[in-house]
Amino acid sequence: MSIPKTMKAAVLFDYGDLRVTEMPVPELDAGEALVKVDSVAICGSDPGIIARGWQGYTPLGSFIPGHEFTGVVVATAPDVIRLKVGDRVAVEPHKGCGRCENCLRGLYTTCLNYGNLELGHRHYGFSTNGGYAEYAACHDTTLHKLPDSISFEEGALLTAVGTVMYGYERIGWVRPGETVVVTGPGALGLISARLAKILGAGCVILTGTREERLAIGRQMGVDITLNVHEVDVLQKIMELTNGIGADMVVECSGQPGPAAQAMEIVRKNGRISYNGVYREAVSLPLNKIVQWNLLITGPKAEGMWNLERAIPLMADGRLNLKPLITHRFSLDQINTAFDTFTGRVGGAIKVIVKPESVS
Amino acid sequence: MSIPKTMKAAVLFDYGDLRVTEMPVPELDAGEALVKVDSVAICGSDPGIIARGWQGYTPLGSFIPGHEFTGVVVATAPDVIRLKVGDRVAVEPHKGCGRCENCLRGLYTTCLNYGNLELGHRHYGFSTNGGYAEYAACHDTTLHKLPDSISFEEGALLTAVGTVMYGYERIGWVRPGETVVVTGPGALGLISARLAKILGAGCVILTGTREERLAIGRQMGVDITLNVHEVDVLQKIMELTNGIGADMVVECSGQPGPAAQAMEIVRKNGRISYNGVYREAVSLPLNKIVQWNLLITGPKAEGMWNLERAIPLMADGRLNLKPLITHRFSLDQINTAFDTFTGRVGGAIKVIVKPESVS
Amino acid sequence: MSIPKTMKAAVLFDYGDLRVTEMPVPELDAGEALVKVDSVAICGSDPGIIARGWQGYTPLGSFIPGHEFTGVVVATAPDVIRLKVGDRVAVEPHKGCGRCENCLRGLYTTCLNYGNLELGHRHYGFSTNGGYAEYAACHDTTLHKLPDSISFEEGALLTAVGTVMYGYERIGWVRPGETVVVTGPGALGLISARLAKILGAGCVILTGTREERLAIGRQMGVDITLNVHEVDVLQKIMELTNGIGADMVVECSGQPGPAAQAMEIVRKNGRISYNGVYREAVSLPLNKIVQWNLLITGPKAEGMWNLERAIPLMADGRLNLKPLITHRFSLDQINTAFDTFTGRVGGAIKVIVKPESVS
Amino acid sequence: MSIPKTMKAAVLFDYGDLRVTEMPVPELDAGEALVKVDSVAICGSDPGIIARGWQGYTPLGSFIPGHEFTGVVVATAPDVIRLKVGDRVAVEPHKGCGRCENCLRGLYTTCLNYGNLELGHRHYGFSTNGGYAEYAACHDTTLHKLPDSISFEEGALLTAVGTVMYGYERIGWVRPGETVVVTGPGALGLISARLAKILGAGCVILTGTREERLAIGRQMGVDITLNVHEVDVLQKIMELTNGIGADMVVECSGQPGPAAQAMEIVRKNGRISYNGVYREAVSLPLNKIVQWNLLITGPKAEGMWNLERAIPLMADGRLNLKPLITHRFSLDQINTAFDTFTGRVGGAIKVIVKPESVS
Repeated sequence: MSIPKTMKAAVLFDYGDLRVTEMPVPELDAGEALVKVDSVAICGSDPGIIARGWQGYTPLGSFIPGHEFTGVVVATAPDVIRLKVGDRVAVEPHKGCGRCENCLRGLYTTCLNYGNLELGHRHYGFSTNGGYAEYAACHDTTLHKLPDSISFEEGALLTAVGTVMYGYERIGWVRPGETVVVTGPGALGLISARLAKILGAGCVILTGTREERLAIGRQMGVDITLNVHEVDVLQKIMELTNGIGADMVVECSGQPGPAAQAMEIVRKNGRISYNGVYREAVSLPLNKIVQWNLLITGPKAEGMWNLERAIPLMADGRLNLKPLITHRFSLDQINTAFDTFTGRVGGAIKVIVKPESVS
Repeated sequence: MSIPKTMKAAVLFDYGDLRVTEMPVPELDAGEALVKVDSVAICGSDPGIIARGWQGYTPLGSFIPGHEFTGVVVATAPDVIRLKVGDRVAVEPHKGCGRCENCLRGLYTTCLNYGNLELGHRHYGFSTNGGYAEYAACHDTTLHKLPDSISFEEGALLTAVGTVMYGYERIGWVRPGETVVVTGPGALGLISARLAKILGAGCVILTGTREERLAIGRQMGVDITLNVHEVDVLQKIMELTNGIGADMVVECSGQPGPAAQAMEIVRKNGRISYNGVYREAVSLPLNKIVQWNLLITGPKAEGMWNLERAIPLMADGRLNLKPLITHRFSLDQINTAFDTFTGRVGGAIKVIVKPESVS
Repeated sequence: MSIPKTMKAAVLFDYGDLRVTEMPVPELDAGEALVKVDSVAICGSDPGIIARGWQGYTPLGSFIPGHEFTGVVVATAPDVIRLKVGDRVAVEPHKGCGRCENCLRGLYTTCLNYGNLELGHRHYGFSTNGGYAEYAACHDTTLHKLPDSISFEEGALLTAVGTVMYGYERIGWVRPGETVVVTGPGALGLISARLAKILGAGCVILTGTREERLAIGRQMGVDITLNVHEVDVLQKIMELTNGIGADMVVECSGQPGPAAQAMEIVRKNGRISYNGVYREAVSLPLNKIVQWNLLITGPKAEGMWNLERAIPLMADGRLNLKPLITHRFSLDQINTAFDTFTGRVGGAIKVIVKPESVS
Repeated sequence: MSIPKTMKAAVLFDYGDLRVTEMPVPELDAGEALVKVDSVAICGSDPGIIARGWQGYTPLGSFIPGHEFTGVVVATAPDVIRLKVGDRVAVEPHKGCGRCENCLRGLYTTCLNYGNLELGHRHYGFSTNGGYAEYAACHDTTLHKLPDSISFEEGALLTAVGTVMYGYERIGWVRPGETVVVTGPGALGLISARLAKILGAGCVILTGTREERLAIGRQMGVDITLNVHEVDVLQKIMELTNGIGADMVVECSGQPGPAAQAMEIVRKNGRISYNGVYREAVSLPLNKIVQWNLLITGPKAEGMWNLERAIPLMADGRLNLKPLITHRFSLDQINTAFDTFTGRVGGAIKVIVKPESVS
């Protein structure tokens, strides 16, 4: 395949000013492969990055956002032997420096050299260029081979799955037969609920405010949905659990109310994974952690190669995320795509941006 | 329900001499419930108990074996409030003393007061009376409520499931997407394989010598079966895993060959759970544990309340063990039942003994 | 030894009204031993129990508080064989029901039948009678044998040590070489700091406001003390850790400020154990849990037999808590003892109440 | 400091033929620092490498063995910013590829690209050049800064400590108050015993055949030593543990007898870490793993940055390994050094080789 010198890409010229323009196709550094991008999923964090950048790391004027994407390898640096041209791949956005104590212990999503390009850290679509483009240069350690049974579009959701998966790893996995409550039926919440079931949960309860989202949850195999506008969630969960509470709560709403209520609906010795984006401090009944012996964590992205764990589950159809993909746009329509996503136009959940019409 | 004074029971009069006779219906001690037995599954350890007793703990002349059983609660001691008459229950055979350091840390299947009746230890069908009888007195801590969607016969297999489950807990659970090899397609092996899939394994490989058993494995959702008479298992598994080996091996054959080979087919940093009965010492390449950083364990029965974890999985049909139940006999036919089981007559896998014709 | 019919005991007649009176010596139930009490340490939770009772479980008019105590076994129920008359023992206050799912998994301090006397739950000095008396009836499972090298007075602090120890177990122990920050130099804080060092911490930093307490910390082997009135703790800890933060924070102050700041001074992937009593909700930067991948828990008392773990450490002098014992009073002086404790009279840290002058 | 073009180094010209010769000072690749070697400790694996090479990876004619060493950084590649010239460092021999699934999960000592130089794997003194030379090129990820309070000679033992430490990490650390049996009082055994105590073991028991080694164990703080020529170790340990057995056994002898006996002296639910070199298959009572619920592992070298954990423990004197350093030789005397080590001449334990007389 001949690789052009330039490509179309969505560049952040200023905060809030994202425009498709012509950019050089990236050169490959050691360890990298060039990926011809097929599908990019808009992530809940993307609008914030476009509005405000990411913690000062985002280089305005040349920065290409987008971090949930799939494509085909079209070139490899000489030292890349695991991958070859033609491989279909999903990309995970974090590449650790590989040198700091966290990286050496497998904790590369919390690399101590975050943002240090010279030391090899990369965070596609956050501190370095990402996927809203025809091509992206991605390091070997960030590429996961996709089997043919996973489409590029569904595969673009694997980054989100990897984060949910890592959250489960950090909190001690889902233990068989457990009752898992997922609060907040956004994309992460729906994935969390489905994954809990695949990992052996006994009963998965999904709570939220939007009936159409809860319905998608049921379609995806959630056992019980609770609309917080209709029932007293705490009371109902206590009824369902013989007054004991849920074994685990996965908080995905990012809202202070559910975040605090998680400590009420979890059982003694229960576990809570905070998976949301919490824009403000949350007032928590801290004593409950002590008196009820709770265990609490939250996942920093798709750590410890957890994206890979999801591939066989998606490949054989257990993890079917097609119901979450509601819209597709070409790269030229990226701002419409974002408006659709943020405005939840037409019940948008996951919106896919495609640099060119492939399929 | 009126409870008679005497009942039919299979009593071990001497090693190898098991006969159905009339016995007093057991009196209830504090904390106990009287269970009218519906179904008892013959366990692979039963023939040895009948032939040789269990480590000197088995009282000849009055001992009733049988430890995988279900039934209905027909009476309760005054201090039993969790259960009521009419409850359908599965029984787990181990009741720890509740006082020793192991019990206090949740490790009651390895109670340090094993066999000490005065301190409250019980092991139904091993050191104290079990289920091959019309009634059995069982402690509150050994009874698991069965929902209506689980039949008594299938429920009788939950003890075996609990052991497999506890093995997975001890070895760090099945991690999502893993490749799990199960060696030996007996009842424990088939359950191990099915459970691995339910717990999120990516690919489950079952090895064995008998084609009809491997076929049952495939029927139960195993991804790949390997007949050790037809293929080189080690070579084949290496092919299937890109030369890396399996993430976990669950050894269920009890044979020295597969037990040693487990260390060859597992990956670096892999895990091995030895679930079989190993009648002789096994020669192992011990250096591999060090050089490959292996983790090894084996489950002592259905510890840490793991039988309970399996109930929701069986209740909603994910864990369907009906294909394993090949024969049913009345209590009067217990010796025929044992002959069928040990001789694998008619492809016998799990053989159920029923004190009376309930269904 | 002849056991009298009545004894002196401090009884809570009404909230705030604690008086020494004559009470019957307790009768033994199955599994219990009678302990002649030697030393009771006042716990930080005692004043609240006396002022307000404990969650409605405290029977006014007959309730004897006190839950950190030691003594000698003077009688045993027939089924108690582990202990014999003359044994020196430390008492842990929690006895689980032994039947619920939590107890069966070793989590007896969060027994699901809390306060249910009929099912066997006991919580000495909280829901059932405790140690401010000449005698106490204690269950086998709550008694830990003391070697001669541990004095009754120092041994009375083992309950507090057990809680700290269980907190470390829940949070994944202290890992060798770690930098551990303990906030709040009360008794629990000082014990946490000392124990961290004994368990292999590289550097232990203790923060607080009272110089004399920090000095005791240094005397007990703390590497660095920081007075929050004198230095900017966050800035200083970042300096000491090359800008990375502490591997673990053990929050023992119970104050909202340090509780929230724990999330600032801990490193990425760090762990926080909340060991304090938090009387009000605390506003926390919840997003930090996600973005920094924190792990958080708090210990419910001396669970999983952790008091026992501390005995060899105290026995050989590694864990020397004598510096914490500042005052001793006879039982008759119990109200003075409480005033001394709550008013921190004379720098009181741990105040011991002794039913009779033994030593 | 001016760096010469050539240096003295011990080169393996043929199996068994190790000679000091002139070699080029290594050039630095990206990420590397040049270390002026001060002290190299002979490891128990070195004689085998010299006699037979290492699994076919050792390039005869240019290979410099030696993998436990310390020195001073004298030059750094441009991308190395963590280290600067003058830094005193200890070297760990394993550098993973940083790309494979094991490396990405922190398991770099079991890198799946072992021996693949192109992908960046290094194993100093095994598959790539090591420390028996005046200079060595070492990657950033293999260098640990030494504080001034650790001498180069004692620091050279940190690699061995890191392996022991990683073994403890894999087996769930030493839990406070545990009884730990270490079998085999070689260097690894003595370090294991000392470290167990530092990590909070209650009682450390060391077994072996050589009285002078056991005496060193006692000098290093071991509580009890047992000479297997004088006492029945199994019986004695059962006596010492009230018939329960040891909580953990760390097998360091590499001999089949102790390796099998480990399963007899460990308690129910106990843990065994095999840390030895096992040259032959060992016959093990495999059923014990199941019936006693054992957990077994062994450490592949100083994984997961565990060498670093040991530095603060050695720096403040808790881990004093000076008693293990029995001999020192210059590089020119390397074959005498090896003879002293393998022949245990003069009670040799750790023998240090020094490229030049520094101190």
